Amino acid sequence: MTLAVAGTLMQTPAPDRLTVMDAVVEVDDAGRVAAVHDQSTSEGAASGRAALDSADERVDLAEGTFLIPGLVDLHIHAPQWPQLGTGLDLPLERWLFDYTFPLEARYADAGFAATVWDDLVPSLLAMGTTTAVYFSSNHLEATTALARACARHGQRALVGRVAMDHPVGTPEWYRDATASAGVEASAASIEAVTAVGSPRVEPIITPRFTPACTDALLEGLGELAAATGVRVQTHCAESDWHCDYALDRFGVSDSTALNRFGLVRPRTVLAHSDHLTPEEAVLVAGRGAGVAHCPLSNAYFANAVFGVRQALAAGVGVGLGSDIAGGARPGLLGVCQDAVTVSRMLEDGVDPALGATDRGVPESRIDTMTAFWLATAGGAAVVDLPVGLIEPGRCFDAMAVRTDRPGGAIRLWDGIDDEARAFEKVVRLATADDISHVWVDGSSVKP
Amino acid sequence: MTLAVAGTLMQTPAPDRLTVMDAVVEVDDAGRVAAVHDQSTSEGAASGRAALDSADERVDLAEGTFLIPGLVDLHIHAPQWPQLGTGLDLPLERWLFDYTFPLEARYADAGFAATVWDDLVPSLLAMGTTTAVYFSSNHLEATTALARACARHGQRALVGRVAMDHPVGTPEWYRDATASAGVEASAASIEAVTAVGSPRVEPIITPRFTPACTDALLEGLGELAAATGVRVQTHCAESDWHCDYALDRFGVSDSTALNRFGLVRPRTVLAHSDHLTPEEAVLVAGRGAGVAHCPLSNAYFANAVFGVRQALAAGVGVGLGSDIAGGARPGLLGVCQDAVTVSRMLEDGVDPALGATDRGVPESRIDTMTAFWLATAGGAAVVDLPVGLIEPGRCFDAMAVRTDRPGGAIRLWDGIDDEARAFEKVVRLATADDISHVWVDGSSVKP
Repeated sequence: MTLAVAGTLMQTPAPDRLTVMDAVVEVDDAGRVAAVHDQSTSEGAASGRAALDSADERVDLAEGTFLIPGLVDLHIHAPQWPQLGTGLDLPLERWLFDYTFPLEARYADAGFAATVWDDLVPSLLAMGTTTAVYFSSNHLEATTALARACARHGQRALVGRVAMDHPVGTPEWYRDATASAGVEASAASIEAVTAVGSPRVEPIITPRFTPACTDALLEGLGELAAATGVRVQTHCAESDWHCDYALDRFGVSDSTALNRFGLVRPRTVLAHSDHLTPEEAVLVAGRGAGVAHCPLSNAYFANAVFGVRQALAAGVGVGLGSDIAGGARPGLLGVCQDAVTVSRMLEDGVDPALGATDRGVPESRIDTMTAFWLATAGGAAVVDLPVGLIEPGRCFDAMAVRTDRPGGAIRLWDGIDDEARAFEKVVRLATADDISHVWVDGSSVKP
Repeated sequence: MTLAVAGTLMQTPAPDRLTVMDAVVEVDDAGRVAAVHDQSTSEGAASGRAALDSADERVDLAEGTFLIPGLVDLHIHAPQWPQLGTGLDLPLERWLFDYTFPLEARYADAGFAATVWDDLVPSLLAMGTTTAVYFSSNHLEATTALARACARHGQRALVGRVAMDHPVGTPEWYRDATASAGVEASAASIEAVTAVGSPRVEPIITPRFTPACTDALLEGLGELAAATGVRVQTHCAESDWHCDYALDRFGVSDSTALNRFGLVRPRTVLAHSDHLTPEEAVLVAGRGAGVAHCPLSNAYFANAVFGVRQALAAGVGVGLGSDIAGGARPGLLGVCQDAVTVSRMLEDGVDPALGATDRGVPESRIDTMTAFWLATAGGAAVVDLPVGLIEPGRCFDAMAVRTDRPGGAIRLWDGIDDEARAFEKVVRLATADDISHVWVDGSSVKP
């Protein structure tokens, strides 16, 4: 099945660049973008018409509906979906031990897991999350089931069974029995996720975070990554407590310790990382790893805000993560708003009792364009997937957003809104109900 | 017409208290709550049944749909609705002079004003904003039209024509010609809004903020407030620039200057006020004025975060404002989330390069319960309106929220979510599409 979509295409090829084109996007039968025809030229208009006429399926987006790339959520805890929005008045350790670990432990029940995955995956697709990088639970079976749910519903995903064995940092009722058992289960999960057989679903090695893992487990997972070439994800330098813990245990910073264990590698996703020093940023950039910036959960569990601009300037790859359920906003467009908001707060500071110059970090703010780039091309680059932009050779992972829905918050006003403002409104105000189409690999996946 | 509504009632009579009751709410033909029957007692069940049977209209909310008080938005710039979500990468002064003042000046066109008001008011009602405290534009006619739109669509509102005459702080194409012209137009607007004749719509005296007003205008409006007893609203101590400006011009702080002009009075709404010192908080509390806390716009234009807990401890009345369009989230439930989020950031700080103890303001965080109290009973108390709680004697301004909408983000899970968690999910995750009913004075106003 080939596809052609006609509409106004808005995307961000660079953090400071928005392009808007009246376009026909031609998608081949493998779901790749074959061509993007610019309707403002007579040649492009002719080839666009031809593409629309010859495609097996043709979609003409209505006036006021915009075509944008699908969103790449670099950090989601799939099993925490049922607790989305709750418990956010608690400090991280109580949140983990009282709420989160007990919930995650329930995924030993395959039926419960299946029920949650079959709600989570289509819900995220409906919000435009075409690629998800998942922390699953500690369970092999539930993790394989998550991979199958992604394949069945058509979501592009990296799916990681969470490895965790530390006798203090995890409860005895929810952990790998030993380090070697953890490494073996992680290896088995790589095989099981691969065996699902979807070209869109891959495994990812997932040590929870250093406080939850013994040295032997971290070392074994580093070796597994080196042996298999499979991507790695973990939490890094998230909070004061986490950083102090790492220094105390390893004598070096969290990122340095992770690197020594062979876990900071090309395409590694380090979630949060808001406490990275400039020197550590250089290390992360040099290793080809990247950061999943989770702006909303920064406010709750990180004690500080990740400096996006500083990291990009240091050459670190950065994308956005919802951090469900530490972040209680499931749609990644909403997370773009949060990324702009917390960047403004990082720049200006928060405490009115301090002088203006002592309060924040100058030159930290990002705009809606940069936030959207993080959520698309930026995140795609971190995990090296050919998505995030609608251009020839990349997969057609895309969505269409209405700006005229009665009951929605977006309005475009004649004589007021130009294309750049329309883009801002789409990113800042759209909810799932405003998203009319979602495609992954050229297939419609909007439930 | 009398009304009876059966369902699970959730509300916050105090910042730290959530009550949940399986209830029948009986509403008299004036739109007031006549009784709340507790269905868990046999007596309440009997009287509830009788109320349902005898009411002219009866609404039985479905299982999983919750009844909560309607929301009181203490600070909205109505004419900025068309720019919602745009320009938020700019500093306040450019945002005002390049975006906002030119837009507001367009409301000289009564047709344009009518078009915007007829979109804005029903949109806010659909999001549960049953009471709105509006800054209108500088125009008498557009302001009266806004009051009429509120009356027609059934929204409870305080509607203020914006007074502004300062030759430096305002552009010559958008200001009152003289201070006395500004006072006269404000007096005329009080009459015109009152003449609309809705029991739900009242005028409010609205000097924009000190930098936009000459001493003569501020003084004249203070006298007008004293003579008429009409409420006052203005911006107070919002940003570093604003505070420095006030000190420089008046030799005292912004709130002290406003008080000298007779503008800090019982029921005065001071928007933002994030830079209030503890001494000024005592002054504001002593005068019976209150604060419209606008958490999202704090991040954009205030250079700091308002300390809700500190203000409440000082006896200051506090409610929530969306600050449309400086805050780009129109629904006040979403603003509750933002209030929790920025309170966490105020507590923890933002700059990872600072030590943990130098970074934030301890004991600043609020939870979802407190945020919802601000958005309901707290805000109602600031403007002294009998709403914000569903109890006998208050107006039945209320809404019902579904927790089971396919495509929505809220889910309740058996064995996981108790009532307190269900409340958190409603407040944190509901969008306009999840709101099934909205009532003002017992009349259905959901478009």
